[in-house]
Amino acid sequence: MTGNTFGKLFKVTSCGESYGKALLTIVDGVPPGLELTNEMIQTELDKRKPGQSALDSPRKETDIVDIVSGMRDGFTTGAPVGMTVYNVDRQDIHVKQYRDVKEQIRPGHAEYTFFVKYGKYADWCGAGRASGRESLGRVAGGAVAKQILLKEGIEVLGYVSESHGIKMKPMTFEDIKKNYRKNHLNCPDLETAEKMIEDIIKVKKTGDTAGGIVEVIARGVPAGLGEPVFDKLRATIAHGIMSIGAITGVEFGAGFKAANVTGYEWNDEPYLENGKVRFRTNRSGGFLGGITNGENLIIRCAVKPTPTLSIQQKSIDMEKMEEKDLEAITRRDATLCPRMYPVCEAMVRMCIVDALMIARGYDNVNRIENPWRQI
Amino acid sequence: MTGNTFGKLFKVTSCGESYGKALLTIVDGVPPGLELTNEMIQTELDKRKPGQSALDSPRKETDIVDIVSGMRDGFTTGAPVGMTVYNVDRQDIHVKQYRDVKEQIRPGHAEYTFFVKYGKYADWCGAGRASGRESLGRVAGGAVAKQILLKEGIEVLGYVSESHGIKMKPMTFEDIKKNYRKNHLNCPDLETAEKMIEDIIKVKKTGDTAGGIVEVIARGVPAGLGEPVFDKLRATIAHGIMSIGAITGVEFGAGFKAANVTGYEWNDEPYLENGKVRFRTNRSGGFLGGITNGENLIIRCAVKPTPTLSIQQKSIDMEKMEEKDLEAITRRDATLCPRMYPVCEAMVRMCIVDALMIARGYDNVNRIENPWRQI
Amino acid sequence: MTGNTFGKLFKVTSCGESYGKALLTIVDGVPPGLELTNEMIQTELDKRKPGQSALDSPRKETDIVDIVSGMRDGFTTGAPVGMTVYNVDRQDIHVKQYRDVKEQIRPGHAEYTFFVKYGKYADWCGAGRASGRESLGRVAGGAVAKQILLKEGIEVLGYVSESHGIKMKPMTFEDIKKNYRKNHLNCPDLETAEKMIEDIIKVKKTGDTAGGIVEVIARGVPAGLGEPVFDKLRATIAHGIMSIGAITGVEFGAGFKAANVTGYEWNDEPYLENGKVRFRTNRSGGFLGGITNGENLIIRCAVKPTPTLSIQQKSIDMEKMEEKDLEAITRRDATLCPRMYPVCEAMVRMCIVDALMIARGYDNVNRIENPWRQI
Amino acid sequence: MTGNTFGKLFKVTSCGESYGKALLTIVDGVPPGLELTNEMIQTELDKRKPGQSALDSPRKETDIVDIVSGMRDGFTTGAPVGMTVYNVDRQDIHVKQYRDVKEQIRPGHAEYTFFVKYGKYADWCGAGRASGRESLGRVAGGAVAKQILLKEGIEVLGYVSESHGIKMKPMTFEDIKKNYRKNHLNCPDLETAEKMIEDIIKVKKTGDTAGGIVEVIARGVPAGLGEPVFDKLRATIAHGIMSIGAITGVEFGAGFKAANVTGYEWNDEPYLENGKVRFRTNRSGGFLGGITNGENLIIRCAVKPTPTLSIQQKSIDMEKMEEKDLEAITRRDATLCPRMYPVCEAMVRMCIVDALMIARGYDNVNRIENPWRQI
Repeated sequence: MTGNTFGKLFKVTSCGESYGKALLTIVDGVPPGLELTNEMIQTELDKRKPGQSALDSPRKETDIVDIVSGMRDGFTTGAPVGMTVYNVDRQDIHVKQYRDVKEQIRPGHAEYTFFVKYGKYADWCGAGRASGRESLGRVAGGAVAKQILLKEGIEVLGYVSESHGIKMKPMTFEDIKKNYRKNHLNCPDLETAEKMIEDIIKVKKTGDTAGGIVEVIARGVPAGLGEPVFDKLRATIAHGIMSIGAITGVEFGAGFKAANVTGYEWNDEPYLENGKVRFRTNRSGGFLGGITNGENLIIRCAVKPTPTLSIQQKSIDMEKMEEKDLEAITRRDATLCPRMYPVCEAMVRMCIVDALMIARGYDNVNRIENPWRQI
Repeated sequence: MTGNTFGKLFKVTSCGESYGKALLTIVDGVPPGLELTNEMIQTELDKRKPGQSALDSPRKETDIVDIVSGMRDGFTTGAPVGMTVYNVDRQDIHVKQYRDVKEQIRPGHAEYTFFVKYGKYADWCGAGRASGRESLGRVAGGAVAKQILLKEGIEVLGYVSESHGIKMKPMTFEDIKKNYRKNHLNCPDLETAEKMIEDIIKVKKTGDTAGGIVEVIARGVPAGLGEPVFDKLRATIAHGIMSIGAITGVEFGAGFKAANVTGYEWNDEPYLENGKVRFRTNRSGGFLGGITNGENLIIRCAVKPTPTLSIQQKSIDMEKMEEKDLEAITRRDATLCPRMYPVCEAMVRMCIVDALMIARGYDNVNRIENPWRQI
Repeated sequence: MTGNTFGKLFKVTSCGESYGKALLTIVDGVPPGLELTNEMIQTELDKRKPGQSALDSPRKETDIVDIVSGMRDGFTTGAPVGMTVYNVDRQDIHVKQYRDVKEQIRPGHAEYTFFVKYGKYADWCGAGRASGRESLGRVAGGAVAKQILLKEGIEVLGYVSESHGIKMKPMTFEDIKKNYRKNHLNCPDLETAEKMIEDIIKVKKTGDTAGGIVEVIARGVPAGLGEPVFDKLRATIAHGIMSIGAITGVEFGAGFKAANVTGYEWNDEPYLENGKVRFRTNRSGGFLGGITNGENLIIRCAVKPTPTLSIQQKSIDMEKMEEKDLEAITRRDATLCPRMYPVCEAMVRMCIVDALMIARGYDNVNRIENPWRQI
Repeated sequence: MTGNTFGKLFKVTSCGESYGKALLTIVDGVPPGLELTNEMIQTELDKRKPGQSALDSPRKETDIVDIVSGMRDGFTTGAPVGMTVYNVDRQDIHVKQYRDVKEQIRPGHAEYTFFVKYGKYADWCGAGRASGRESLGRVAGGAVAKQILLKEGIEVLGYVSESHGIKMKPMTFEDIKKNYRKNHLNCPDLETAEKMIEDIIKVKKTGDTAGGIVEVIARGVPAGLGEPVFDKLRATIAHGIMSIGAITGVEFGAGFKAANVTGYEWNDEPYLENGKVRFRTNRSGGFLGGITNGENLIIRCAVKPTPTLSIQQKSIDMEKMEEKDLEAITRRDATLCPRMYPVCEAMVRMCIVDALMIARGYDNVNRIENPWRQI
């Protein structure tokens, strides 16, 4: 594989897999003078940590992050920020378990395509680099982006807006912000969330899993971000989101509803508010021509149900090239949604920082006082 | 703007705008020994040419393409292929018309964001680089990609699957291929297409426009394409599709339906067919872990209704910074769908060729006999 | 080939070859509000036009450039600037001449490697894309960069400092600027230039050609340009310069002299001049750690003698794979130096603009007044 | 900074500085099925480790590398290879020492440009990311590239060919290979090496340091590598070499000698040897048109004398903006050459692997047997 770096100026590179020794993340393009602590990164990583509730896989990982470069006296120096997370799950037990069934692909997982691409050397252990564990590097990178965005007054929130067909009610940014971290599903509509959770637990009991939708909303994004024609911010965000393992679709604002309506019903009407152009509706999700228009960004990401089931499934033994049933697997996430929202959040954050850096310049993002500057 | 190149090894760079002198496209990464003619490109460009039916804008453009480099004796040489298309629409009339209203942004169009980004120097004429005319370069690039794919036995078809809420029936690749060029809407379900067209003409009479869905299907794509983790083929296709002007969402296979179902209902069951792994269903749209799995690629693109309306709309005069109504505009596409399918097709083609080139190598795509080769 | 784009934010993409129909150049990353005319580009292209003196090839090309996109009312719009130059040399005569000897490689030319890479489809006509004609796109791109740099107060001059072992005397930037366009060799030391020219004409009479050195000096470059660790400005300039056909080495400041001296003899001593850090000497050529230090950039480029000789040379017929003498060729440059200095200039200009754009941001280079800006 | 990734398909990303906690290197684009051990990397890192002889800085670093990802059962999996090296030098002592003089720039070092670029947050400790310690990541990346090249039969050797004006005699690849690791200077001409070492020790005693030249020779490189026109292999190698801290110039083959000779004296004459095109001389250093021609690559890199001197130097206090003498510093390399040759080697290796991967494809470099492959 040769696609483990994301971004043009703000660049996140990661490595590490399900049962390797460690996951490393290098964030290049971090401006100097940014306060950054292990805790700031840890807070974000903890959001996607397994084993937090009955909805997640019971895998035990502490996910302790350590920033090992790019810092001096608590502030970034402009040098790339490197971070390590060591895997601690009992490899002795689990690697052996995976080794025993390493020839067998799991429906809905990437093993088949990895075998095709990397042959018998493909990492068969816990999905290797195709594991959800890979998303840890994304969240670590996004956590650095978050600190940059906070200084710009840009807030990005990810939350579960739909689960197995049950939808949250429409809510304002403020209400979402107030409530979105209050349940295991990270759904800000607290009442509906209870129904969702109940439903997921019911699904889980049948050995099955549930799909859903993660929504990301961003407030305070200035108008004018993104580079026409191919690198519009809408396009790079779609790239980032669709590169996440379990995502099956992405839409902006009212998205696919566009297919059912007329132009008069769709166009967002501009008006003036205190001398600034605003829009009465936000069907476009904060974009015009793919460039930000100053309204909230709204990105909706379809999350497929966890492919790992506690139900026997038909499958293939790749070594013998014969059909073979895959046994029910108990250790799994009942829904991926609560572990995906921080990943979607992270990708959107990286994209915004990158676009901001392209427009305003590396030296001008988090612009510090600098008596010697010449640029 | 600084995003007018698409692709990593197979790279399409374009320039040109609605009312500039010409549109240029440079395709880098074209392998040597490929037969290529102006006609091959023209065929594709003609698909998106305006003025083909009552559904399109009556703008008069001949869109005559001329290949000016990268060729010798009818075959590509390995050097980049350059193409020119000169604009021929009456600039004397239309530039003046646009100049008269240049301060006024049009709802749903990119003018506002272009003003914010490029100031008073933003090209106010016919949407400038944000015009649909820009997509001509995409189609020209995709036409080169098409010739490469044909030699690989890969076929990519774009068609309108839904218009203003009216959906075509499910069809096989073969049936789609047989019928998709038979009506102005490029919808392969001929009966439903008639209803769609009737409906669009009705909408048009009210001064309004209609949204829809363009579907792209690709057959013959080998398993194993795309680069984990950030440059999975699914991600680069999403990037390409969401960089097109009027697209508001993209989904793969059953896409957003994932949100309503369980893992058991979603997973595509693998089986063996003549010693090859196949899948009984294709909810994933031809991907596993974002990498192609050998099944048909299915990409669904939401197309918003044309924002230009023959209805008066509220808007803003950016010079005076005051609200001002925008007059009804008669010259416009009643639906963008029939002009968007070749663009979506083109982006998917470019992405497949690029992924193929990364995997197999520039020198091995369209691998010619070469007695002197050493690599 | 898949390397016809140069730069990260300020990106020049070109196509076209010795005997194709036209050469196209697309410059992406051009800021809005820049005055730009065909004449400004033409002035630069004319510097490298063949047939200007007895030192050059007598090939007849008018090299008329036409800007076809990215402009409105004489100013750039922020959209990519596209340029065309049509080849006008008598193709009927010359293509036939080349066809007659198309199997035969020419010593010192790229035909052999092109055959190896592109097989029998390699363009055999006048060196195809490996021809010096390719450099026209570089100069066109550099001409756009020049306009940006002039607004920043940055001047970049290229000139011939050495020819066939004859060296010009040391001169100040001011004196170089005053004199460097005064002779056909573009050597600012007017007396020595006469000797050089005399010598070249003598060499030419023997059927031979002469090598030399092109020096590029840049004044007004702010300190702090370039991105550690791999994209230091010194590194990207080396990349740009060494990508030019006939260059065999590049050094910065005193360059290779570093190998003969001690640290005490080499280090440039910093001092304060009106509160600003300056350096008493400039052995480093304007760099510290590969980043600009505010002193003049000095780049020295070794130019090999034109490989085309009016002397019979031993060579190979690639078709028959047998040794075969290559006849003397009369139409050729006696020295490449006077046609290379604008190309070296151009590459340095592009690199500086790109680094400036990365540091300061696309939206902040040639920053125009913009009441609507939000970034 | 935003330039810490090198390469297009084979990509090395690194972070870490002189006195950070650790240096991380992520190598993306590693093909599956490559045997790789910590020892293989360690062998290369040990070449550039400080404190190996009287010629180097006495800094104590063990430079123990640990591969933490991209492996399964001793073979690469296709996933990116991550490596850690923890700094062990006594930070308690040295950070304090640097803190005491942190406002003072050192002549010939990058501090000044880092202050200008990163302001007061620039890492003042031991040159931070501008330290030679950064090169450790390059060597780690190059060590992975080396394993790929060995399987291709490509050997790359770096050695010191000149020191403080004393030049080694011309030697064959075989003789260089036999002798180049036999002395602390890594100069294969053993007799001359003794003189060089004697000279350096004499220079060192005066508190001074010596410059020199590192030569890199590569054997077995197939013809046809590199991508015209901007990414010729010669250009990417120049980029890589000139991105190394102390390099002041780079030339290929006879390089700058081109300036003194005629075309007849310069052109390498092609001939046939067992049906294969060869060249009687190698003045071009293995390139034609910037593309490899099948002969040995020869790259010569000018290395400036260590800027750190045990002699008092004039300098600047950046805080007070006043001139201030810099005290003599005892802990330093008497010459950088013996620590630079592995770095130059590494950059050349990366460039060759990258070019090979672009030409032949990621999936075809170290092509393993793979029954499931479809590409």
